[in-house]
Amino acid sequence: MNDSVVEILLVEDNPEDIELTLRALKKNKLANNIVVAEDGEEALDFIFARGKYRDRSVICSPKVILLDLKLPKVSGIEVLREIKKDPRTSMIPVVILTSSTQEEDIEESYKLGANSYIVKPVNFENFIQSLRQMNDYWLVLNRLPSR
Amino acid sequence: MNDSVVEILLVEDNPEDIELTLRALKKNKLANNIVVAEDGEEALDFIFARGKYRDRSVICSPKVILLDLKLPKVSGIEVLREIKKDPRTSMIPVVILTSSTQEEDIEESYKLGANSYIVKPVNFENFIQSLRQMNDYWLVLNRLPSR
Repeated sequence: MNDSVVEILLVEDNPEDIELTLRALKKNKLANNIVVAEDGEEALDFIFARGKYRDRSVICSPKVILLDLKLPKVSGIEVLREIKKDPRTSMIPVVILTSSTQEEDIEESYKLGANSYIVKPVNFENFIQSLRQMNDYWLVLNRLPSR
Repeated sequence: MNDSVVEILLVEDNPEDIELTLRALKKNKLANNIVVAEDGEEALDFIFARGKYRDRSVICSPKVILLDLKLPKVSGIEVLREIKKDPRTSMIPVVILTSSTQEEDIEESYKLGANSYIVKPVNFENFIQSLRQMNDYWLVLNRLPSR
């Protein structure tokens, strides 16, 4: 895999949500540019080029990380904390994509440096629409350092 | 003015860009929800409820701040730094909206905690389209703490 083409890292353990997201991205012809990590540990391995991702380079960052909060092994909050405290990865936009509307999750996420917090729409059409908006925003409109 | 309705704080000194932005927002029926600060000092006065904005409450934050970098009196970078270092205001999404494509501006903005960095499109139609996307994203899709 040529890691320079990874545009989205989706960190999500719910198979249904993974399936939905990939379908939505396929419609937008972005499905080749996505890596899915199904728990927090795998996400950190990808981001910091460890374990099965040790051949990657940490500086080949995705353009955006879509991060669920409730994850096996390492929580989304912990993943967020690790990304934002390391100067090599702190500039990667992290969008929390979760079903949690709990005030403490929202506040904690922003305090740790999340760039945005999106509540997953329960309705399928709205979910697709939101993903499209997120992609257009973070992959096309938003500008990152070129490194 | 009832400050609870302020959804966007636009910090911009270029009259043409202010005019364009207000026109674009009017098309989206958001023009009543915007406050324009024409220099960095006025922006900080608004955000921290000082000077002519002393009757506001700091906790009645806008949903998003669109912040130019090159500003009279206090620079956009300095405004960003003040917003992000104060726990009362650090959770307000700050989108840098600038004509600068300089690597150091992009990096410095993200390091200081900018949520997003958008380069102003030079073409009028693209500018309008980008503003619409920004509004949809930050005013509708993005979730903030309710306080």
